[in-house]
Amino acid sequence: MNIQTPPSPPRQPTRTPATGDVTVGPRAGGRKVYQNGTLFPDLRVPFRQVDLHASSGEPPVTLYDPSGPYTDPTAKIDIARGLPALRAGWIARRGDCTVVEQPRAVRPEDNGGASGATLAPAFDNTGRVVWRGRPGRPVTQLDYARAGIVTEEMEYVAIRENQRRAATDQALRDGEDFGASIPDFVTPEFVRAEIARGRAVLPANINHPELEPMIIGRNFLVKINANIGNSAVLGHVADEVDKMVWATRWGADTVMDLSTGRNIHNIRDWIIRNSPVPIGTVPIYQALEKVGGVAEDLTWEVFRDTLIEQAEQGVDYFTIHAGVRLAYVPLTARRVTGIVSRGGSIMAKWCLAHHRESFLYEKFGEICEIMREYDVSFSLGDGLRPGSIADANDAAQFAELRTLGELTRVAWDHGCQVMIEGPGHVPMHKIKANMDEQLAHCGEAPFYTLGPLTTDIAPGYDHITSAIGAAMIGWFGTAMLCYVTPKEHLGLPDRDDVKTGVITYKLAAHAADLAKGHPAARLHDDAVSRARFEFRWEDQFNLGLDPETARSFHDETLPKDAHKTAHFCSMCGPKFCSMKISQDIRDAARGQNDGAGMSAAEIAAGLAEMGEKFRVGGSAINVTVE
Amino acid sequence: MNIQTPPSPPRQPTRTPATGDVTVGPRAGGRKVYQNGTLFPDLRVPFRQVDLHASSGEPPVTLYDPSGPYTDPTAKIDIARGLPALRAGWIARRGDCTVVEQPRAVRPEDNGGASGATLAPAFDNTGRVVWRGRPGRPVTQLDYARAGIVTEEMEYVAIRENQRRAATDQALRDGEDFGASIPDFVTPEFVRAEIARGRAVLPANINHPELEPMIIGRNFLVKINANIGNSAVLGHVADEVDKMVWATRWGADTVMDLSTGRNIHNIRDWIIRNSPVPIGTVPIYQALEKVGGVAEDLTWEVFRDTLIEQAEQGVDYFTIHAGVRLAYVPLTARRVTGIVSRGGSIMAKWCLAHHRESFLYEKFGEICEIMREYDVSFSLGDGLRPGSIADANDAAQFAELRTLGELTRVAWDHGCQVMIEGPGHVPMHKIKANMDEQLAHCGEAPFYTLGPLTTDIAPGYDHITSAIGAAMIGWFGTAMLCYVTPKEHLGLPDRDDVKTGVITYKLAAHAADLAKGHPAARLHDDAVSRARFEFRWEDQFNLGLDPETARSFHDETLPKDAHKTAHFCSMCGPKFCSMKISQDIRDAARGQNDGAGMSAAEIAAGLAEMGEKFRVGGSAINVTVE
Repeated sequence: MNIQTPPSPPRQPTRTPATGDVTVGPRAGGRKVYQNGTLFPDLRVPFRQVDLHASSGEPPVTLYDPSGPYTDPTAKIDIARGLPALRAGWIARRGDCTVVEQPRAVRPEDNGGASGATLAPAFDNTGRVVWRGRPGRPVTQLDYARAGIVTEEMEYVAIRENQRRAATDQALRDGEDFGASIPDFVTPEFVRAEIARGRAVLPANINHPELEPMIIGRNFLVKINANIGNSAVLGHVADEVDKMVWATRWGADTVMDLSTGRNIHNIRDWIIRNSPVPIGTVPIYQALEKVGGVAEDLTWEVFRDTLIEQAEQGVDYFTIHAGVRLAYVPLTARRVTGIVSRGGSIMAKWCLAHHRESFLYEKFGEICEIMREYDVSFSLGDGLRPGSIADANDAAQFAELRTLGELTRVAWDHGCQVMIEGPGHVPMHKIKANMDEQLAHCGEAPFYTLGPLTTDIAPGYDHITSAIGAAMIGWFGTAMLCYVTPKEHLGLPDRDDVKTGVITYKLAAHAADLAKGHPAARLHDDAVSRARFEFRWEDQFNLGLDPETARSFHDETLPKDAHKTAHFCSMCGPKFCSMKISQDIRDAARGQNDGAGMSAAEIAAGLAEMGEKFRVGGSAINVTVE
Repeated sequence: MNIQTPPSPPRQPTRTPATGDVTVGPRAGGRKVYQNGTLFPDLRVPFRQVDLHASSGEPPVTLYDPSGPYTDPTAKIDIARGLPALRAGWIARRGDCTVVEQPRAVRPEDNGGASGATLAPAFDNTGRVVWRGRPGRPVTQLDYARAGIVTEEMEYVAIRENQRRAATDQALRDGEDFGASIPDFVTPEFVRAEIARGRAVLPANINHPELEPMIIGRNFLVKINANIGNSAVLGHVADEVDKMVWATRWGADTVMDLSTGRNIHNIRDWIIRNSPVPIGTVPIYQALEKVGGVAEDLTWEVFRDTLIEQAEQGVDYFTIHAGVRLAYVPLTARRVTGIVSRGGSIMAKWCLAHHRESFLYEKFGEICEIMREYDVSFSLGDGLRPGSIADANDAAQFAELRTLGELTRVAWDHGCQVMIEGPGHVPMHKIKANMDEQLAHCGEAPFYTLGPLTTDIAPGYDHITSAIGAAMIGWFGTAMLCYVTPKEHLGLPDRDDVKTGVITYKLAAHAADLAKGHPAARLHDDAVSRARFEFRWEDQFNLGLDPETARSFHDETLPKDAHKTAHFCSMCGPKFCSMKISQDIRDAARGQNDGAGMSAAEIAAGLAEMGEKFRVGGSAINVTVE
């Protein structure tokens, strides 16, 4: 096979003023390609394709791509209009939803009372309708799955997970999956079955039709989430949108908007309307703003109102800390770092102040009813997660986890999709117990963890302390990893921190996929390694998670174009390049047998013959060529 | 306990021109302290002590410190004279060594034929003597240990490992150690016993008296190594020395000088004479230079000469790729990335070119004899380590490992100290097999691994892909981790890369210590976490692995001094700071019982009482306060 396509030239992301200053343009070294559906031919599932140098004789490599239309040079981006509502037709033709006649109107408190110059401009929702499920009809992906119906979203994610591998392609897999059931090839029916049994969630609010569906579950590729939040000082709304665009550009599969303060409603509108990935929120944050920041003043009514507000906007999943029960708060009293979840501490304070059980727990059934109507997925929050190595796996944490398991079953009974949040700070030897407990108590609902950080001693490097734990727990079965940036514990991440956090978590998630034996994972590693061995520098850069950085590191010492085909780099130099010497050895073996055109098997045989001929006695090892 | 000492002000490292431009000055937030020996009162074992804010009521935290006199403000640094020869008296009074009458003279080929302006200045060795062990007398630390003799070096490392904990201090440990035997408190006798059975090495060439002894073994703190190498273009010799100083400043426990090219002898002299940590080399690199870079021209005589040259200089450990046997080379023929060890590929080429068994293998006994005379430790190189995920744990790798086990026994029989090098690139699920095989075949000789990298897809981020593997294999039992910098596979690391690599590996090694249940490890994490919970920002910075970076990250958004005592950071802001809310909750609980002066137990009881009072029926969880 001889691919003639040259590698794409590197392109810098541009922040076009006309589009309100968000990052658009193709990613370096790859190009956007789409695959249509079979059950639903109108599906156009996006991928990033990396074409390799002709000398490789290899086909292009197709990679998962959550970056949405922003990286498609043919897409017209206008954040004032939002992304195309690609799911609108699917939702309409299913006919299970109805237009809400009187959607909840925006109120001043939704934006923290901001007005005039301090009020962020509202997104122009002219012509937009708000959907809600019809009574007695399926609305959530779980409802459909249980009814045996394969939705457009399900075929979309099936195609996406396969990364354009054919069903007949041989899978390279030798992992340890700890009891997962990862198939060689993902079919829409497999997706349906996984959702039906609650082992996967497909977060897709019917009011977020701009979404490119993705799936979170133990038997799919490990996903990553990036958190963003509005700045204390109001910038251009496009800057807030760009945080989401930037995070997905590098690989974030979902984005949580953890904004607090003013303008929270309006900015969220801008983000959702422009987001190709599921958006998660923690509704208690906004509810707290509505009561002036006083936790004790929170009420069920305010919270309920906030759920509806955000569900109608199109938030895809809600973190709900309903497992922070009154009785568990004392379990945190002797902790080194108390309660470190914001939502958890807010609810603990409320419970103690009122001497009452949490309204999130008491009203959980009503919460389910609301979330089901819009297909908002649960992310059951771990409000009592450990915030330090000392507090890992303690009574408070595991008591809450069992309650989250209890609530999972309640939510499933209501037809809601559920995932479970996990820690936090956990030393390596206590990580597996987290996964085991979660599997034991939460019915295999997807686990979604923050790291965990494996030591507390490296502020400024917690993307790394946590990548260690994230890779491990991802291997053990966690379905989505919430990123941690270098600024964790210290301040608000900037653009560079977000990129570093996303790339770090992409590599951790991939290391997990590889160790689990995901059939598509090894293809990527092997493509990079072959490029490395054959000194196809451009291919190595382009196949990497961050082509620009790899290229710039290389070019610091060897900037010339000629060095892009050089058989060495500045690390060892030409004389000491082991890969070059290895190739010389293979060339020599070829020479022994007359030279040109030998296959790998023939080279191996040639080397084996050389080895046998001069084999030294006394070796305990049998020399065999595989 | 009420410590009045205020936290040290941050200080910038200074590069004093008078000392030839190496980095000197105390590290931010800590100060150098020393502890004397008991068996040998003249020992002065250095530590980094971090004094905490008076409000904490906590004693200072003592941390391991490999940075040598450079971080002691009272030390006079003059790289033209080298560091004080603190071990000279120990070696002399043991009386087991003799002065070499005619040390090997420096020859032009030792510096690659450099002359005139291209020749690096020679270190002034006037008055320096070269030592060698007397026949029939103990010389290696292994010889002494077997003879039941506790050396100065052994007491030194015992004190060092305990980090000023008292023998009576209660150890906080709950790890999983996979069969290691980590004591609560390290005695000199324990050190001796571990060395005697080959389970630890104390690399300390008798010709490197400037060395501050350290120990590498499964039952001690996990160590890290940083690689440095001379630049292609000759700079000031001080720049080469400073690479070593810089790496140890941030925590490198040993440094390998992987220089190639010209001036290799002279620069090594400067490095060793100024190094407080063991220096390792790969002698085949210099041997190859001596034969003009043509692997086929290598001879045993050239290699032997190089061993003596470097042993007389004071190199503490040699990487010797004696396990790359002729018969194993064909096993690499079908690999994706062939042979990726420089030394391994050189020897493979030599073996095939001559159709002969490796002279390193055939002359191994003679090599042992030379290394024993100076107490140069073996680091048996893994010349056939995998260079890609595809090649991990293959026949070539494990065949070589078994040979390394065979050679370990030969070296032990000669009285030599031995450690074993390990991979490389290994997916998570194949890491433990590496440790298990090493333990099975190499008699518990310390394992010393490069990473391993857990995926190939992230060039530019391989400090992180490898930190994941390093932390895991350190947990499983690896004694020393060779760092990987962000430039791996791409180019020569610069100063920032070296620092990033060292800090990344420090945190990985610490995560491993913690998971193994090392008794000193948790103290550090808990001190950081208490500082974090109590908003002692300066203490959190100072206790971290990189105080400057933590502080600068914090100050990007909250630069004012007042914010250093603020009960929040910019990540969540004051209203959403969970730690602040947690403290409010505890304050409220105190209030319930009249306020001031409650102990943690009383707070717990108060919270428990509140919890009990409003306990909700139906909870399956028993509320118990530990």
